[in-house]
Amino acid sequence: MKKDIKNKKIVCLGGGTGTSVLLSGLKKHPINLSAVVSMADSGGSNRVIRDEFGLLPTSDIRQCLVALSEEKGDSESLLRKLFMYRFSKGKGTKGMTFGNLFMVALTDIIGSQKEAIKKTSQVLKIKGRVLPVTFDNSNLVAIYENGKKVIGEHFIDEPRHDGRLKIKRVYLKPESKANPEAVKAILGADLIVIGPGDLYTTIIVNLLAKGIIKAFQKTRAKIIYILNLMTRYGQTLGFTAKDHVRAIEKYLGKNCLNFVLVNSKHIPKTAQNEYGKENEFPVIDDLEDSYFKVIRGDFLSEKETKKVAGDILKRSLIRHDSDKLAKAIINLLCRQ
Amino acid sequence: MKKDIKNKKIVCLGGGTGTSVLLSGLKKHPINLSAVVSMADSGGSNRVIRDEFGLLPTSDIRQCLVALSEEKGDSESLLRKLFMYRFSKGKGTKGMTFGNLFMVALTDIIGSQKEAIKKTSQVLKIKGRVLPVTFDNSNLVAIYENGKKVIGEHFIDEPRHDGRLKIKRVYLKPESKANPEAVKAILGADLIVIGPGDLYTTIIVNLLAKGIIKAFQKTRAKIIYILNLMTRYGQTLGFTAKDHVRAIEKYLGKNCLNFVLVNSKHIPKTAQNEYGKENEFPVIDDLEDSYFKVIRGDFLSEKETKKVAGDILKRSLIRHDSDKLAKAIINLLCRQ
Repeated sequence: MKKDIKNKKIVCLGGGTGTSVLLSGLKKHPINLSAVVSMADSGGSNRVIRDEFGLLPTSDIRQCLVALSEEKGDSESLLRKLFMYRFSKGKGTKGMTFGNLFMVALTDIIGSQKEAIKKTSQVLKIKGRVLPVTFDNSNLVAIYENGKKVIGEHFIDEPRHDGRLKIKRVYLKPESKANPEAVKAILGADLIVIGPGDLYTTIIVNLLAKGIIKAFQKTRAKIIYILNLMTRYGQTLGFTAKDHVRAIEKYLGKNCLNFVLVNSKHIPKTAQNEYGKENEFPVIDDLEDSYFKVIRGDFLSEKETKKVAGDILKRSLIRHDSDKLAKAIINLLCRQ
Repeated sequence: MKKDIKNKKIVCLGGGTGTSVLLSGLKKHPINLSAVVSMADSGGSNRVIRDEFGLLPTSDIRQCLVALSEEKGDSESLLRKLFMYRFSKGKGTKGMTFGNLFMVALTDIIGSQKEAIKKTSQVLKIKGRVLPVTFDNSNLVAIYENGKKVIGEHFIDEPRHDGRLKIKRVYLKPESKANPEAVKAILGADLIVIGPGDLYTTIIVNLLAKGIIKAFQKTRAKIIYILNLMTRYGQTLGFTAKDHVRAIEKYLGKNCLNFVLVNSKHIPKTAQNEYGKENEFPVIDDLEDSYFKVIRGDFLSEKETKKVAGDILKRSLIRHDSDKLAKAIINLLCRQ
């Protein structure tokens, strides 16, 4: 017998495109949805936001807000388009997203980035909540296997060094304190979904905010990890499914997962070739049922998405399917 | 007996701060309101819009849209604030207004600046319509008494030459064709209000779009000219009230006005001193009733407005009062 899922609390941990895809699917179900998103992005628009405006980065927040926004109605669809719009002209604006500038202006008017996010949520009529994992300004630091140290999410994500180097550990500098609302959401959740998303710069970075791991240890929520489809040069080159899980366990502790969702549908060769050029390959599934259960299925999007310039859309050729992911997660929620 | 003013058609011709002040007052009355606004602005934000985005300038439109926008409600007041917001940080965004960037992004998404203005009008819930005087891209050219030629609204408005030089004539290069909707509004109006605003760069520039003068000659509307409070260095230094009227007559023809509204309230000495530093002085009222009637009264704003940086607010110390102007105009409408 299916349990009632109404108002069940689901928390998605991540940021960026992967979490957006997931949220777009989950928002269609009558659940209580929160996204806990990374605040360590330092590339593109976010560099400007951090360095020139002195604010916390907003790209992950913006993407999740758009993913959760109301899609019906002319004004709503126009607002969504505006929020995703990236200026292609203008010496100073080229590459900036309208959504980021909206939030910068609003933060300045209201005087608080936290309140600006809440106001933007209202304007976009979002289903659920987007919670920055922290409001502290800090940088992600990676120590590699050869002792090399790289500071800044951007330089880890798009390495200027040899991207085949393996990351030994990551930490935040300075330490950041978790947003109490994010901690509360994790503690009160029925289900927490980790990923999909870049292993270190989108997923693990969230676990580093002080208070998050403790909340994971205390929560009674079931934890699902959605395995990435592709490895990422600079972060997970050569990583199998087991390597991904091990990396998460290193921060979250042994026995931290209840389910791992793995796509078993073949990724088309043409798309694989495109990614291969950038040293990115399908994650090899070497998982076996362990203290967690492996859920395999077709979670692959069949939409053909064009590769475009900019820091957000260029990885969109191969991605998860919103509805397939949501369906699998809602099924797990019912089985609990 | 007062005539019913409901749905009477009033057209305001100008742009910029003066027209915004006027519209803010008029929108409170149950009339049918249109603003025909200048599209020749080439300074500040508009230079970027024209040169870097290849679009028509939007500052005058933006100001009028904000003036006509709904003021009640939290979201509305926030949107108004956002639209007026000027970025104070960011290498590329400093000095840009959010409203202009909003319209640039929307124009790119929709593919038409005309439609983008209509959509923005909906978003801001404006009372009335804002009609660009033209959709053609052209520059204002001024020929001075000594034969000197200056191209570009910005260089006429903030002269790099000796601003005491008198303008002999102005024209648009290339010629621009009036927006048919602006022509239609003038033809169908019950009352047309010219000004207040910079004589050449805000008022006369509108008369130069091909089709506007003809529409003025054909319309049965009564024409009111609101005399500026202060002369403007580079445009009207030493101009008396009569000189202002003569300049308009030169383009619009003899007998073109029915009323001239003149402020008779004394302008405080402290404010006069501020303006004096920039070679700007109260316009001397040497008008007598002629083919037009002179309406004198207290039209002065008593609000203390701080002088701030940027191309819009720096002339706001001495200005007309929205409600006093509107009251006088509605009275004239009733007397017709």
